[in-house]
Amino acid sequence: MVNYSEAHLDRVFAALSDPTRRAVLSRLARTRPLSVSALAEPFDIRLHTVMKHLDVLADAGLIRRAKTGRTVHVEIARGSLQPAVRWLQRQERFWSASLDRLAVYAEAKERKTRERDR
Amino acid sequence: MVNYSEAHLDRVFAALSDPTRRAVLSRLARTRPLSVSALAEPFDIRLHTVMKHLDVLADAGLIRRAKTGRTVHVEIARGSLQPAVRWLQRQERFWSASLDRLAVYAEAKERKTRERDR
Repeated sequence: MVNYSEAHLDRVFAALSDPTRRAVLSRLARTRPLSVSALAEPFDIRLHTVMKHLDVLADAGLIRRAKTGRTVHVEIARGSLQPAVRWLQRQERFWSASLDRLAVYAEAKERKTRERDR
Repeated sequence: MVNYSEAHLDRVFAALSDPTRRAVLSRLARTRPLSVSALAEPFDIRLHTVMKHLDVLADAGLIRRAKTGRTVHVEIARGSLQPAVRWLQRQERFWSASLDRLAVYAEAKERKTRERDR
């Protein structure tokens, strides 16, 4: 398992914080590699802006670009969302575990009170 | 199921794109509610900066703050990471599905070639 750095997670989450970039990723997850112009088509923004978004996604390692002749094709980088998913799930797991500990503590306290009041 | 807006996801992912904010969330996921000063203690940054980070986390709905007398306690907002997890997992699911479709397509093509060359 690759150990992803904090700086890498910074870039991934920052890349995901924009609705156009999320839409680009969603689209790429649903199709085979697309040329930049085909990818840009449904978005009502300038090609230059799309390219900037692609730079951010590529810097975060979420997409790959490959040049075939004069056409650049873009595809999603498989498994690249996993570090983000794992980080999020780890928090939720710890959170559930600490809730469990709280519940055990509350139960033990209640039992003691019941025993005392008997 | 609540339908989270794009703007909400923007805020969640932006909140997660900073290492101090992720560390604050990690710490809160592992403990019971903490006072702001107890929470700030392990971080080598000014209390004012911690407060700013807490504002960002609260705006994204990831933490809750409650005032008891003169002390503000902070806790993680249970389940608030779920929209982000769901969004990420949806992309991975579609990606796997489109890989499956590609495999079926490639297999069918190969079979045809084999049949033709027989």
